[in-house]
Amino acid sequence: MTPELEDLFSFLRFPSVSTDSRHAQDVRACAEWLLAKLTAMGLTTELHETPKHPVVVARNPQVPGRHTVLVYGHYDVQPVDPLNLWTSDPFQPEIREGRIWARGATDNKGQMMAHVLGVEKTLREHGELPVNLIFLFEGEEEIGSPNLASFLLHHCDELRCDVIAISDTGMVAPGVPTLGYGLRGITCCEAILRGPKGDLHSGLFGGAVANPAAAMARLVASLHALDGRVAIDGFYDHVRPLEDWERHMWSHVPGVSDADYLQVTGSPGLFGEPGYSSAERLWARPSAEVNGIGGGYQGEGSKTVIPAEAFVKLSFRLVPDQTPKDIMEKVKNHLEWHCPPGVQIEIRPGHDGKPYLTDPNSKYGLAAQAALRAAFDAEPVLIREGGSIPIVQTFRDILGADTLLLGLALADAQIHAPNENFPVVNFEAGIRLNQALLAELAK
Amino acid sequence: MTPELEDLFSFLRFPSVSTDSRHAQDVRACAEWLLAKLTAMGLTTELHETPKHPVVVARNPQVPGRHTVLVYGHYDVQPVDPLNLWTSDPFQPEIREGRIWARGATDNKGQMMAHVLGVEKTLREHGELPVNLIFLFEGEEEIGSPNLASFLLHHCDELRCDVIAISDTGMVAPGVPTLGYGLRGITCCEAILRGPKGDLHSGLFGGAVANPAAAMARLVASLHALDGRVAIDGFYDHVRPLEDWERHMWSHVPGVSDADYLQVTGSPGLFGEPGYSSAERLWARPSAEVNGIGGGYQGEGSKTVIPAEAFVKLSFRLVPDQTPKDIMEKVKNHLEWHCPPGVQIEIRPGHDGKPYLTDPNSKYGLAAQAALRAAFDAEPVLIREGGSIPIVQTFRDILGADTLLLGLALADAQIHAPNENFPVVNFEAGIRLNQALLAELAK
Repeated sequence: MTPELEDLFSFLRFPSVSTDSRHAQDVRACAEWLLAKLTAMGLTTELHETPKHPVVVARNPQVPGRHTVLVYGHYDVQPVDPLNLWTSDPFQPEIREGRIWARGATDNKGQMMAHVLGVEKTLREHGELPVNLIFLFEGEEEIGSPNLASFLLHHCDELRCDVIAISDTGMVAPGVPTLGYGLRGITCCEAILRGPKGDLHSGLFGGAVANPAAAMARLVASLHALDGRVAIDGFYDHVRPLEDWERHMWSHVPGVSDADYLQVTGSPGLFGEPGYSSAERLWARPSAEVNGIGGGYQGEGSKTVIPAEAFVKLSFRLVPDQTPKDIMEKVKNHLEWHCPPGVQIEIRPGHDGKPYLTDPNSKYGLAAQAALRAAFDAEPVLIREGGSIPIVQTFRDILGADTLLLGLALADAQIHAPNENFPVVNFEAGIRLNQALLAELAK
Repeated sequence: MTPELEDLFSFLRFPSVSTDSRHAQDVRACAEWLLAKLTAMGLTTELHETPKHPVVVARNPQVPGRHTVLVYGHYDVQPVDPLNLWTSDPFQPEIREGRIWARGATDNKGQMMAHVLGVEKTLREHGELPVNLIFLFEGEEEIGSPNLASFLLHHCDELRCDVIAISDTGMVAPGVPTLGYGLRGITCCEAILRGPKGDLHSGLFGGAVANPAAAMARLVASLHALDGRVAIDGFYDHVRPLEDWERHMWSHVPGVSDADYLQVTGSPGLFGEPGYSSAERLWARPSAEVNGIGGGYQGEGSKTVIPAEAFVKLSFRLVPDQTPKDIMEKVKNHLEWHCPPGVQIEIRPGHDGKPYLTDPNSKYGLAAQAALRAAFDAEPVLIREGGSIPIVQTFRDILGADTLLLGLALADAQIHAPNENFPVVNFEAGIRLNQALLAELAK
């Protein structure tokens, strides 16, 4: 195993699950390991406390007149359940079939570590970097970066930069370099319906008392029209229509045909808003998804109860010019208005983030295209992303800099799911990409 | 504590959860304790193996010319989850506020032990019983008595009897003796909807792939019309209308007004089929209930996935002249027809049982009324039951005998739910009731 893979494996072994308070010490240990690695590379490092998980910052000696590039990443990961569906331990990385298998392998430890090791290599080869570099790594991305905006506000002078680079997005197909210029936003909530004060016997009370699980089914069903459109009043009001050049380019991007999505997801059939291709639905149209639903008996066999309550966890992906605040207001109105009789509703808003859009042919955008071309020896494609990195909009708001999305995540990387993986060749290309990117941005 | 309560507490301490295979040894240990108790009382006892949990039979010396009375009960109990909602350990019985708190306190160990101890008391006082008695106790009632019909068929000669008595039903209010003459039937199933081959990231794939949890919500919502009627085609075809005398009597039964049901359940509002009182909905109208629903992320916080699958556990309560077979066929047709696009459905049928109806003013019915009057010193009411005891119909089919339902379960007994309880006075009345019943039936 190469020293680079050994570094990545050490990084992956930390169960830095930010969403689960039982893992708080693991998240911290991961940050401290990262700090030590960056310090050993000769960078000036800082560990900043936040109310939850620390931020790690590292810099090379800053030379006046050079461009300043901020590379952002996150060292926290998603939960791993259902654990029984993993082929190998999510926190004991393994290489099988040319891929690294572990939670965080792609999202985001693998992609982030490629930047770190690209910098290490350039420093080893040239003794210095061609730009002023700022590494900014946080431990709260998977819980919506609740403390990063405040951190940026308090440190905006030291973090001032010309451009930001992030590798935390998708690559459309193996070997096809991909520049992302847009992201969907997000807003989340949980709704709880409460009926009887405790679970009831469904024989003694069934048919005379509202069933919170049945009421939840009716409420959730009201979110979509039969044809796949989101049925929340005003949901599409501020959606910016697709440009003609985008529809044209995307129809030629490899790896994102309807057949590709069927193959990658294993779904029995695609389903969504009428009038759009799958890529268009994912990159430029908003969505409403059920992330979790539950209520009543969950075990083996049957238990004939009317549950006392039921819950649903919902998330909505947003596109320009929707705003999380406006959409959550519309969602709340919808859920309250459509709540069936006989139950009481509680709505708990969750994290959110604005959608993002920039120009892929700006000066820095063209530099990123050149670096991608060099690292992969192929022509890059220009896409938007279905996922959300709310911090990208926050960077623009606070630091005034735009972000280049140099994605290395394949569609079957299983991020946020069991058996997350990252091809070894993408890890190696990511190291080359970092070296080429800093060189191109220095011009 | 009285010796009677000590016996009941010993019986309640066995976690005889028949639905959970991890408790198989506890169910057996409970049966063996019961066998020893009945043997010590001087009865002739037998423990019969079945493919799952044993049947316990006990008899006094059978005297030709006397009436033969079979008393049925079950020593298995429902699961206890959610355990965190119990005030005290479900298998460490306690007396608080005049009630016995434990899983099985009412359903069925408390009611069943009252019969056992009534017989013990009569034997102690009179040296013999006035009837030929057969105790028949099974350990599979909560899983639908899968082996009891076969057991009855193999032993129908030894089990021949004139009448059957069961205390496993409701008492409308404290101190109001209640004779049940009808039971709802039941049929259960689980439906599973499958979409992608694994959980998907809701950013990368949300809006283009059918979400099994959202599809499940739509499918479950299709089971009811907005007004509360069950919307399955033909569901009400064979429902026998209520008799005028039933509607009249039930409107005067204490403890079963709409206000009583609101108070007992703590529901924010009642809900059900239009045109019927709550008692009529529960005792003489069929129902469709969601007993459990689940899919996707169930933990703390949020996890933005599209779940690979979702499940629902459904049960349907049936009334004369519906049949489980016909209704399950209609349910399956409905679920398959209404299954949304983009997911695959699997339907797993569960246990079932026919509804039951008898004449409360037959010779034995009048004897039961007299025994109830004597045990409680009050006029009995005649009701049907919302719950299901499928074996009652099976007794009629195989043994040719009708069943008297002498219920001691109060509406707030929390059977099948956390904090199950049984008033000490009902336990004591149950012992008197057994003594009076055998005396009345001997006449």
